Amino acid sequence: MRSLTWQQGCLRLLDQTALPGRTEYIDCRDWRRVAEAIRKLEVRGAPAIGAAAAFGLVLAARELAAGPAEFRPALLAAAGELRATRPTAVNLFWALDRMLAVVGRHRDDTSPAAVAAALEEEAMAIAREDEVVNSRIAMSGAPLFSPGSAVLTHCNAGALATVAFGTALGVIGEAWRQGRISRVFADETRPLLQGARLTAWELVQEGIPVTLITDSMAGWVMKLGLAQAAIVGADRITAGGDVANKIGTYTVAVLAQRHGIPFYVAAPLSTFDFSLDSGDDIPIEERHPAEVTGFGGVRTAPAGVDVFNPAFDVTPSELVTAIITEHGVLRPPLRVAIAALRDKKGGR
Amino acid sequence: MRSLTWQQGCLRLLDQTALPGRTEYIDCRDWRRVAEAIRKLEVRGAPAIGAAAAFGLVLAARELAAGPAEFRPALLAAAGELRATRPTAVNLFWALDRMLAVVGRHRDDTSPAAVAAALEEEAMAIAREDEVVNSRIAMSGAPLFSPGSAVLTHCNAGALATVAFGTALGVIGEAWRQGRISRVFADETRPLLQGARLTAWELVQEGIPVTLITDSMAGWVMKLGLAQAAIVGADRITAGGDVANKIGTYTVAVLAQRHGIPFYVAAPLSTFDFSLDSGDDIPIEERHPAEVTGFGGVRTAPAGVDVFNPAFDVTPSELVTAIITEHGVLRPPLRVAIAALRDKKGGR
Repeated sequence: MRSLTWQQGCLRLLDQTALPGRTEYIDCRDWRRVAEAIRKLEVRGAPAIGAAAAFGLVLAARELAAGPAEFRPALLAAAGELRATRPTAVNLFWALDRMLAVVGRHRDDTSPAAVAAALEEEAMAIAREDEVVNSRIAMSGAPLFSPGSAVLTHCNAGALATVAFGTALGVIGEAWRQGRISRVFADETRPLLQGARLTAWELVQEGIPVTLITDSMAGWVMKLGLAQAAIVGADRITAGGDVANKIGTYTVAVLAQRHGIPFYVAAPLSTFDFSLDSGDDIPIEERHPAEVTGFGGVRTAPAGVDVFNPAFDVTPSELVTAIITEHGVLRPPLRVAIAALRDKKGGR
Repeated sequence: MRSLTWQQGCLRLLDQTALPGRTEYIDCRDWRRVAEAIRKLEVRGAPAIGAAAAFGLVLAARELAAGPAEFRPALLAAAGELRATRPTAVNLFWALDRMLAVVGRHRDDTSPAAVAAALEEEAMAIAREDEVVNSRIAMSGAPLFSPGSAVLTHCNAGALATVAFGTALGVIGEAWRQGRISRVFADETRPLLQGARLTAWELVQEGIPVTLITDSMAGWVMKLGLAQAAIVGADRITAGGDVANKIGTYTVAVLAQRHGIPFYVAAPLSTFDFSLDSGDDIPIEERHPAEVTGFGGVRTAPAGVDVFNPAFDVTPSELVTAIITEHGVLRPPLRVAIAALRDKKGGR
């Protein structure tokens, strides 16, 4: 399964809001539809929205190259709109910055069509690289697990959240093939149930034994000794090693610490925001109250209730056992390991 | 609102599976219907199911007194069936034991109708006493909160879970009237959403400001400093002070400890099981997988997924700041405080 494919000027997205009930695709030929898909979570997951936004900018460039508008200002405006779709995951900004750097490198090119072609190449490179990156993350992370381990994960950091393979689920898949992981406990991940709908679906498709639990059961699963590790993806990691990820991740990390089991984060270099020192500085998206007061069109809470609906939380670095990247496993002190990674590989 | 009322040979239950969408009542004139209502959670909450089972036995006694069956063996069989409806909350067994003690005291009474009448008196006493007990718990617990506190609660320990007033929500209501609590964060409490459906509904009806969150947000709410205490009810408390309560309670207690905020349990004497030393010995009910694979009648998880669905978990006494009872506030060492309570008040 692929979260997105690029075919002759059309970005085809697997509609993640329809899974697992229906496998439906959204064909985006207009960059505005890509922006809408990101906002509506039809495509979600930090690496996947980065790649989707990159192709969105390709669609914008092609439209503008064919039209009468002033190319560069209009293209920058489109990039700005794509950038504003979601505030927390940094891969979105990373991908758009890469794309805008291409525009910068072509500043003397008077042919919008040539710029559009260069942008298409860059977007395809971003997508291709994400596959390689994730397979490296998988290889880096798999040895961390002792044979026969059961592992708990939260939200979906699988193929659907990336271009292919996934981050946390990529590690899980590789460790499973190596006989290191025998079962996955998947938090359902309210409010939008990415764990029940997407992670469970991916794991069932791969034939990996998966036990679905409500988020409230993670502590009890650990107390009973049923899981020997926890692993999640990330939406943004600061220079200090604080990790923004789906709401509920922080609780999983606190529980892992209490039970003395490792808490791993799997994420590519593009998820690091070296410009931020502390997780306190990460903007946390707050979404619509209706996500909490009901599900699937069924209203469950009474009228008159207030709602708090942060889409993400921040896990402080002190609770992170290791961060698994395509450049190896980062161990505490994470601030030092992350600085070394930045110096070696560069990054925003 | 009352979870149950007894009117001339009919136990009227407020159907808690229909709330908050519909306010419907179930009129039980047959003890088997009461057993079904307990199993289906139409009536739930440890003190409420104790009282409901007591009235169930009254219905059985009335039926048997009027019929040809051998009275005492058939009555004991009915008590056995009522006892088997749910395994974890001890109030159910406590109430039935009280009722059977009445049968024992009338062992020389040859009139089944007289025994049935005595049982009806005892059930009405249980219900009446629960009201008094809960109002005492409320008065005991309210002073624990500093003026203007926000408090987090899990599941529903309100009027619906008892005969009247509630345990944890009784304390909250009293503390709110005293100006000590200004807002309640209510965990929605998956899988069956007693927080969203019942606690939020009760608090809205009382005019107490309530913010609904998913269970996965409790940690982040505490991290942000939005709640200064947590309070829950209980289904069974051991001699050592371990507390069985709705699944997810343990996680709330772990989170409270991490954030240095008090974790209070509000429960009557009838919730204590002095015969058990450790929470490890409490039987934990496991319920149907469909509660986890769906949400409000909507199937959300793919076929082929395994499910773990424990209805309760056990919070070890070390995480409990205090237990609020009708006989005052028990403080650590809880084993000592609980032994003193048992010696003073007696108990099973």
